[in-house]
Amino acid sequence: MSKQRILTGITTTGTPHLGNYVGAIRPAIQMSQSANAESFFFLANFHALIKCHDPAQVDQSTREIAATWLALGLDTDNAVFYRQSDVPEIPQLSWILTCVAAKGLMNRAHAYKASVDANREAGEDPDYGVTMGLYSYPVLMAADILMFNATQVPVGKDQIQHIEMARDIAGRFNHIFGERFALPEAKVDDNVAVLQGLDGRKMSKSYGNTIPLFLPEKQLKKSINKIVTNLLEPGEAKDPDSSTVFQIWQAFATEQQTAEMRQAFLDGIAWGEAKKQLFELINGQIAEARERYNDLLSRPSDIEDILQAGAKKARAHSEPMLEAVREAVGIRTIK
Amino acid sequence: MSKQRILTGITTTGTPHLGNYVGAIRPAIQMSQSANAESFFFLANFHALIKCHDPAQVDQSTREIAATWLALGLDTDNAVFYRQSDVPEIPQLSWILTCVAAKGLMNRAHAYKASVDANREAGEDPDYGVTMGLYSYPVLMAADILMFNATQVPVGKDQIQHIEMARDIAGRFNHIFGERFALPEAKVDDNVAVLQGLDGRKMSKSYGNTIPLFLPEKQLKKSINKIVTNLLEPGEAKDPDSSTVFQIWQAFATEQQTAEMRQAFLDGIAWGEAKKQLFELINGQIAEARERYNDLLSRPSDIEDILQAGAKKARAHSEPMLEAVREAVGIRTIK
Repeated sequence: MSKQRILTGITTTGTPHLGNYVGAIRPAIQMSQSANAESFFFLANFHALIKCHDPAQVDQSTREIAATWLALGLDTDNAVFYRQSDVPEIPQLSWILTCVAAKGLMNRAHAYKASVDANREAGEDPDYGVTMGLYSYPVLMAADILMFNATQVPVGKDQIQHIEMARDIAGRFNHIFGERFALPEAKVDDNVAVLQGLDGRKMSKSYGNTIPLFLPEKQLKKSINKIVTNLLEPGEAKDPDSSTVFQIWQAFATEQQTAEMRQAFLDGIAWGEAKKQLFELINGQIAEARERYNDLLSRPSDIEDILQAGAKKARAHSEPMLEAVREAVGIRTIK
Repeated sequence: MSKQRILTGITTTGTPHLGNYVGAIRPAIQMSQSANAESFFFLANFHALIKCHDPAQVDQSTREIAATWLALGLDTDNAVFYRQSDVPEIPQLSWILTCVAAKGLMNRAHAYKASVDANREAGEDPDYGVTMGLYSYPVLMAADILMFNATQVPVGKDQIQHIEMARDIAGRFNHIFGERFALPEAKVDDNVAVLQGLDGRKMSKSYGNTIPLFLPEKQLKKSINKIVTNLLEPGEAKDPDSSTVFQIWQAFATEQQTAEMRQAFLDGIAWGEAKKQLFELINGQIAEARERYNDLLSRPSDIEDILQAGAKKARAHSEPMLEAVREAVGIRTIK
């Protein structure tokens, strides 16, 4: 049985928060330790440019995300960990795929359609404010995936369409130029926790309700104290299932700890006490990694070295793949 | 006064014909010998993939076009002559520009609009058969131009829009990220001859009415004999201005030769004789180059070496340019 090849990209526009950790980073790192899979993780900084025109933020986010994954134990001997922009074969493949991808396919992309709908509602031209980056990023994403013949791409439900588009583009290429690409599959894990943010909505950078993962200890405590609760007094029974504090607790606790906290809620634990315990639970799990994170950030050139080593591993795949693709389409050495 | 920087791309999908020679190659090679200009010429094989999904044809056309330009005396010491696919910085810049280019700009491109109109007339979906390559090639073209800070781009009237798009994209980039790119200008030469083909329409690969430039001598003669004429007998006066034979003659002859042939038409020169003289005129001008062309094609690895040397010269520009652009948008070494 051949190994699964799993590929995950992380867009470098923000600072990793508890939601990213629980929903994406933690399961990915676990998966990377599986002997049955080869894992590819990349910092998607070419994708970041679509949304973010602030160079300092792209730069800062890239180093923070790299340091986060490394600090949390990503095994770079086992996994291939690279920065997208260090693999110049990717934009080349992206252009070649652009030449076979149907424009109609992009018209159906959710993100683009949402922009068009918003413009229509506002009485604007449908393409008002839409860049070619927003419109054509599914092609770049197809290049990211097909370059490494990834068979499995872990995504949320809202991203399944992108994987279907990559399959479509791969199929068209294979049909015209001969079989070069494996057809990737979306891997949707329904059990992955979606964390609530400070205000009880999904924790998301765009809502401004996140708790950054590696806040200094005092600030983490402060931030957890800001989680919105109701006005029930100590001693009054509280509903765990409607509580953000409890929901976050669950994402970090063992089954037994969860059962105990559920009981404590029913027994009327004070909000301050519940938050204190939540802080201790989370802090206990990430304190060591935070130390490694801060240490790494203080040695930026070591992060760079790790990424360069990762790029070398990635290019051991991407160079021969691009060479084969170029040969297939007629971009050849004259001989 | 700073030198003009002139850039010309040649799409590698066909075999050069007399119309290409007269309308593009001959003036470009003359221009390349000017001391007031730096010339960049490239084989646009990434663009070829948009229209041509036949790898053998892309490959064959690339070598034929390279050999043609070299045989005709392109001075590769003076000009930078390279193959687009040998400059991996170009697709990277293209993606970065994709992230600032407005989708609305592409909607207005003539080539795309023509496809949409044809689909509408045929009752098809507007984007039927339209690839992302056809839709987004003005962005790649902007990257081709802006990468080398070309100030002048010689184009036909139908291409002026592309240069305006490149200016627009450059302006947006400069506005967001700081001045990096010179704004290119279209250089339209109204005096450039548009040659008629065998059937009297514009000589064009898409009409199948071309006379390939470096046909073997006998075939060139045969091909010229196929030029459509009227049924006037020898001795009957002929109208030079409505004659394809005379129109092609003009494109190769001196003023005096043109005046003499005009008189010969009025005096009733036989079509066979006029075509014989036309063959001799053209053959006299290209016979030596044809020999060099055939010699070059028999030494393909020498063509490759010349293109590799050109790529090296091109990358001496494109590498620092891409580096500066990456820095500007936040794709940076971590240090």
